[in-house]
Amino acid sequence: MHFASDNAGPVHPAVMQALTDANDGYAMGYGADAVMDSVRARIRKVFEAPEAAVYLVATGTAANALLLATMANPWDTVFCSDCAHIHEDECNAPEFYTGGARLTLVPAPDGRMSPDALARAIGDGRSRSVHSAQRGPVSVTQVTEKGTVHSLAHLQALATVARDHGLATHLDGARFANAMVALGCTPAEMTWKAGIDAVSFGGTKNGLMAVEAAVIFDPALAWQFELRRKRGGHLFSKHRYLSAQMLAYLTDDLWTDMARSANAGAARLLDGLRRVPAVEVLHDPTANMIFARWPRALHQRLRTAGAVYYVSGDPDHGDPDEPLTARLVCDWSMTEARVDRFLALLTA
Amino acid sequence: MHFASDNAGPVHPAVMQALTDANDGYAMGYGADAVMDSVRARIRKVFEAPEAAVYLVATGTAANALLLATMANPWDTVFCSDCAHIHEDECNAPEFYTGGARLTLVPAPDGRMSPDALARAIGDGRSRSVHSAQRGPVSVTQVTEKGTVHSLAHLQALATVARDHGLATHLDGARFANAMVALGCTPAEMTWKAGIDAVSFGGTKNGLMAVEAAVIFDPALAWQFELRRKRGGHLFSKHRYLSAQMLAYLTDDLWTDMARSANAGAARLLDGLRRVPAVEVLHDPTANMIFARWPRALHQRLRTAGAVYYVSGDPDHGDPDEPLTARLVCDWSMTEARVDRFLALLTA
Amino acid sequence: MHFASDNAGPVHPAVMQALTDANDGYAMGYGADAVMDSVRARIRKVFEAPEAAVYLVATGTAANALLLATMANPWDTVFCSDCAHIHEDECNAPEFYTGGARLTLVPAPDGRMSPDALARAIGDGRSRSVHSAQRGPVSVTQVTEKGTVHSLAHLQALATVARDHGLATHLDGARFANAMVALGCTPAEMTWKAGIDAVSFGGTKNGLMAVEAAVIFDPALAWQFELRRKRGGHLFSKHRYLSAQMLAYLTDDLWTDMARSANAGAARLLDGLRRVPAVEVLHDPTANMIFARWPRALHQRLRTAGAVYYVSGDPDHGDPDEPLTARLVCDWSMTEARVDRFLALLTA
Amino acid sequence: MHFASDNAGPVHPAVMQALTDANDGYAMGYGADAVMDSVRARIRKVFEAPEAAVYLVATGTAANALLLATMANPWDTVFCSDCAHIHEDECNAPEFYTGGARLTLVPAPDGRMSPDALARAIGDGRSRSVHSAQRGPVSVTQVTEKGTVHSLAHLQALATVARDHGLATHLDGARFANAMVALGCTPAEMTWKAGIDAVSFGGTKNGLMAVEAAVIFDPALAWQFELRRKRGGHLFSKHRYLSAQMLAYLTDDLWTDMARSANAGAARLLDGLRRVPAVEVLHDPTANMIFARWPRALHQRLRTAGAVYYVSGDPDHGDPDEPLTARLVCDWSMTEARVDRFLALLTA
Repeated sequence: MHFASDNAGPVHPAVMQALTDANDGYAMGYGADAVMDSVRARIRKVFEAPEAAVYLVATGTAANALLLATMANPWDTVFCSDCAHIHEDECNAPEFYTGGARLTLVPAPDGRMSPDALARAIGDGRSRSVHSAQRGPVSVTQVTEKGTVHSLAHLQALATVARDHGLATHLDGARFANAMVALGCTPAEMTWKAGIDAVSFGGTKNGLMAVEAAVIFDPALAWQFELRRKRGGHLFSKHRYLSAQMLAYLTDDLWTDMARSANAGAARLLDGLRRVPAVEVLHDPTANMIFARWPRALHQRLRTAGAVYYVSGDPDHGDPDEPLTARLVCDWSMTEARVDRFLALLTA
Repeated sequence: MHFASDNAGPVHPAVMQALTDANDGYAMGYGADAVMDSVRARIRKVFEAPEAAVYLVATGTAANALLLATMANPWDTVFCSDCAHIHEDECNAPEFYTGGARLTLVPAPDGRMSPDALARAIGDGRSRSVHSAQRGPVSVTQVTEKGTVHSLAHLQALATVARDHGLATHLDGARFANAMVALGCTPAEMTWKAGIDAVSFGGTKNGLMAVEAAVIFDPALAWQFELRRKRGGHLFSKHRYLSAQMLAYLTDDLWTDMARSANAGAARLLDGLRRVPAVEVLHDPTANMIFARWPRALHQRLRTAGAVYYVSGDPDHGDPDEPLTARLVCDWSMTEARVDRFLALLTA
Repeated sequence: MHFASDNAGPVHPAVMQALTDANDGYAMGYGADAVMDSVRARIRKVFEAPEAAVYLVATGTAANALLLATMANPWDTVFCSDCAHIHEDECNAPEFYTGGARLTLVPAPDGRMSPDALARAIGDGRSRSVHSAQRGPVSVTQVTEKGTVHSLAHLQALATVARDHGLATHLDGARFANAMVALGCTPAEMTWKAGIDAVSFGGTKNGLMAVEAAVIFDPALAWQFELRRKRGGHLFSKHRYLSAQMLAYLTDDLWTDMARSANAGAARLLDGLRRVPAVEVLHDPTANMIFARWPRALHQRLRTAGAVYYVSGDPDHGDPDEPLTARLVCDWSMTEARVDRFLALLTA
Repeated sequence: MHFASDNAGPVHPAVMQALTDANDGYAMGYGADAVMDSVRARIRKVFEAPEAAVYLVATGTAANALLLATMANPWDTVFCSDCAHIHEDECNAPEFYTGGARLTLVPAPDGRMSPDALARAIGDGRSRSVHSAQRGPVSVTQVTEKGTVHSLAHLQALATVARDHGLATHLDGARFANAMVALGCTPAEMTWKAGIDAVSFGGTKNGLMAVEAAVIFDPALAWQFELRRKRGGHLFSKHRYLSAQMLAYLTDDLWTDMARSANAGAARLLDGLRRVPAVEVLHDPTANMIFARWPRALHQRLRTAGAVYYVSGDPDHGDPDEPLTARLVCDWSMTEARVDRFLALLTA
């Protein structure tokens, strides 16, 4: 009963097979492998973006920080939600890679900045003289860190606010596939058609071992990104093993199948949680991550029974009736049986 | 007949098997996997260094740059050979990760700085006032970028020069195992017993998919390294797959067996090359990498016949008799048959 | 009627004289001038800190950023008020000099963080794992950017919160003298006796041409600061002219006399403002800077009559009755006559 | 008898007067002072460059590092002589301001890179793949750090090499006026007419208190430079005092008069030195700085008699007959009498 994170789950067998298949003889390194040509073509096709620059890295933090560094000047501020991964969980990687840009945090109670809140943060009446951090790109996370999903209209509204101020928009798509499946849209619709300029296209949380694609719709930024990737130590010598994972991911709809499986697990879990009076579901989870509150005593019982998930607050000390906030994530390998077992425990 | 690089070769089947074995159910991410505990214990044992800090990253550039950043201040200069990988092949990663430290290049015709040359560079009579870059760590590559191997006495002499000036010493061990096998020594002898303070302990070039260990003998630097790794985007969420590779590497002498195989291939190749009058072998190759010179026309013939290796100089234009410098590297999977086929071509 | 800023005012004649006196023959550069020895001794005496490290720079941003860089790691976050100069007016200098640290903004409606708000920001229940920015120093501005002054007890409470979390405290004292005179305390009481570890001791806003002292009570940080200053291009070759200004400043109570004069101007102005029904004074101005609100139409009239000060909001468009927020600052050269002339205009 | 440095000398009285004159009432800060408008116009006129971006900073290191950061990417290498000030005397400021670019040192025995040596360093046959530092701007010092002066043809040849490789050229003109007077040319001839793209136009060493102008012939870089200056803490609040110095400098030929005076002092000194058999003059000094060698014993005698200048090597220990290398610099205030007194001592 492991709901801690979708990056705690296993790699899909088809991906493992692709790695084994790729492990044949010699291949030129550093992205010059033949498989990467296929990956590039596939991603461009999937995104309906024949000119897009496409690069692979192994971590989401690398993808985010390298893209933001490519999009922002060192004297800029990046606009993002106050719970953004780039703010909460990357140990100043954006500041490091941009050479000292900062983040302006936009309130986003359910993980989604409103276009108004974003507009206020960008253009709040203060002039941007030489004394101030200059306006830099907007970064939006989809699926958000609270488990919600921006509608296409919402994404478009945010990107429009950015563009109206002359700013570019980055999408942190660590759970890109889960959002896309939830929305029932195409990759293009969720990105450049909505005004997104560059995407961290996540694979690791959705069944890969360690691959994220950086997709930049303006190919003029390609060489700069390449140099930043190398300089960051993120260019792999045995690159074919990144390529092989990503190619398998995009073959035979594996990526959407895995996302559907993860989302289905979460939907089943959500349905069950909503039936439990002691449980309060937070926000509006529509992908594969759920935040909910239940009493400390219940948490302790679940933990003892072997359930694994994150809670905020002190799990061990305090009023047994005080609710803690739990985060539960389903990955592609989640099964109905495991969800049901957890729900049974919860209501036992 | 692929001699381009040991990082163009395949992953050892035992490592692939270990990845498959690790792909079972859930595991906590970010280095909290149980396998990492075994890796840490194993590396400490192998290095006879029970207190050493041990971390895994996926690229050699990451290992080098993160270690140098941990050892150097931004106002320091790092002393290294004028052909060091950190100078030639990392696109300013050391400058980036250290926050602006620089490199002082020490002449090293065969890849090995002499202790005298190092001492001159460090303490060349100029005072290090506030105007100058301050003295930072020494970085030594073993196997060197010219295919030579420092003797233990040589390593010790370099580290002694460093220590006499109050400086620490870093070992870039991208081909650590190849050097160790060539010297017939222990890991401890080639590192801390010789005065080395931190090691980039390479695995990728020697049969792994993408793992290097950073080994720091002073555990006081551990937490700083962890933060730098995360901030650089080099902390893997599905860390168990790094751990699994490294554990397999250090199990049943796989790592030394692979290095022996690579070195044996190179020795056979070297022996053959030395019998060819048109070939001039450079330096003193004792591990798995050989530099040699032969005429452009010969190179063109070899290339046409399918031999793959790097040459410096223009392979296509110029006097057919002019010698080009070729680099040939054998990886663990090199076979006698392939070496012989190449040698046969050469003398055809 | 110039109330725009205390850095728009002239240099005190005694300081100009000191510059002229210093302009005699040769003097060793880069801080090795004899006058700097006197400055160091004087500042140590004034601060009752015989071991303090003392350095001069020419801008407040340099003093702040260099001190924060000396106190914070690149992976840290600096805690400061949400209107701090380091946040609002230094164009990412702190991020630049620290190598990528960030700022955590603590709400401070009147410019003063409460100890509780600071404690919440520092220790808000979230663990500081490797994924998060680590806790770095606290930075407090005195006089605040809203014109208020922390009491000694308040400063002490903030520094205690910091120290309880193992953090150091920096004081941005761009208007140090104005605050000290307002509180009627000693430099030591307003700094190390209250728990402050390092001070940007401003002189420029209080009658100097361009000198700020960085005073660090822990001399172990001295050499690092020196290197950072040089590396930032802030070590002056003709350093004696910085020294001469600072020595004159601290001679015959010039610095406190000037601060008293500025504060007296502001007090007279405040007294007058409070008598005008159309004016709403904000916060509790006790030094030399006042924020107040009055209608747009009144502002336009004052501006036309030659009054110079900053307003936030659009001075030219909007409801004539809508209040704008004005900032008025008095420097050492402010006269009663000028204040009275402005007040007369206001009530005309 | 002070020959240590031209930055050890006094400020010209006319400059002091200009400071006093500027010290009148209020003036807007941060470069918005009216005097700066005159400075900008004057410099544009002097350089025959009506579109040039012109900014003032207070130190040569700031001017150099800010300009190089504006011209180079973080992944670039800057080409400069192996004795360049940016290499020897700025404590990694270029690396810091560029965000991690490096320097490639070009051999220059007399301080002047030859166009061939520069071309070899830039285009030495190695491809600049993603693994290598990319080619960045060329930086040339005029007067060089060895006291020599590039002819206009030489400057042009260097800038042509740069331009042929698509690179820009920076001129470190800390002693700009001394070189220009020595060459008898115009500012335009020594800069953009020779292919120079940006200049650190020094004033401090030539009689100012602390002002250097950054002159950028491509105005498209202006705003970026402004932001970098502010972010580096080099934008002065009481900016009028920088402006006033520079305006005085460029008024009534003060700047060329001072340079002529300094050069005349050095010429007289050189003439005398060449008559002393024990003295060996190095290089070809044609401006205001001379390197020469004489025995340790002679140095000790001169030092005891009160002569001040830098020597390299240990002045106190070693063979009395062994020659030390002395550096002697004349500033604008050098008198014939002082030169003659020194020469008399030397031959006593």
